[in-house]
Amino acid sequence: MLGRRVKKGVDNEMKALGRHVLSELYGCEFAALNDVERVQKVMVEAALQAGAEVREVAFHKFSPQGVSGVVVISESHLAIHTWPELGYAAVDVFTCGDRVDPWNACRYIVEGFKAGSYSATEYKRGMMEQERKAV
Amino acid sequence: MLGRRVKKGVDNEMKALGRHVLSELYGCEFAALNDVERVQKVMVEAALQAGAEVREVAFHKFSPQGVSGVVVISESHLAIHTWPELGYAAVDVFTCGDRVDPWNACRYIVEGFKAGSYSATEYKRGMMEQERKAV
Repeated sequence: MLGRRVKKGVDNEMKALGRHVLSELYGCEFAALNDVERVQKVMVEAALQAGAEVREVAFHKFSPQGVSGVVVISESHLAIHTWPELGYAAVDVFTCGDRVDPWNACRYIVEGFKAGSYSATEYKRGMMEQERKAV
Repeated sequence: MLGRRVKKGVDNEMKALGRHVLSELYGCEFAALNDVERVQKVMVEAALQAGAEVREVAFHKFSPQGVSGVVVISESHLAIHTWPELGYAAVDVFTCGDRVDPWNACRYIVEGFKAGSYSATEYKRGMMEQERKAV
């Protein structure tokens, strides 16, 4: 978090409403990425393990292969799109507030699909100016 | 798209499987961001206007305010999380393939919520090495 003076004599800080982690999973098994029930289970468990509250679940199996799905949580969402034929899955985990850490969900997903390798980057969402609380 | 030689004598190129646009909408009206039916309608229409095929829809209204929702499309997803009290919405549009342009959906959403200002950035997802087709 960056702190900066925005008004003379008033010490404010910029704070993000949410954290959005985009992750690329490579080297996953075809079967794991093509099983819609398994994909949904991993994503819902990732949300729960990270301490999120699940609100809505929507998953879809494509023909001949591939799964897309989203878990809407009180703290935002988890989404996945799989390319089983490439061993690849695009994952994103968006959480707002300080209670749930998107990286915990991301780690669970990487392990859940036994990814051979992965990359992940966090983006701050909704940077807002907030008055700094007195210490 | 970047082109580079990865094997001696073989001219390959790196290509992204998908494009993921993260957009921040500011200066939206409270009522527009707090009406779950309207939010869902804007998001589904954005998908259709961009030429996407809608597969699943999952929206949730929070108390006392705020809406979260996702439209799963054949080409990936559109998601939104609103903070009506701040006039802010976090939007992301993920499309795979060349047929649907995520920026068309993004523009529709910005107009749909009459955002006073917005920012948006595109991230390439699933960079894969592909053999360049002979011309």
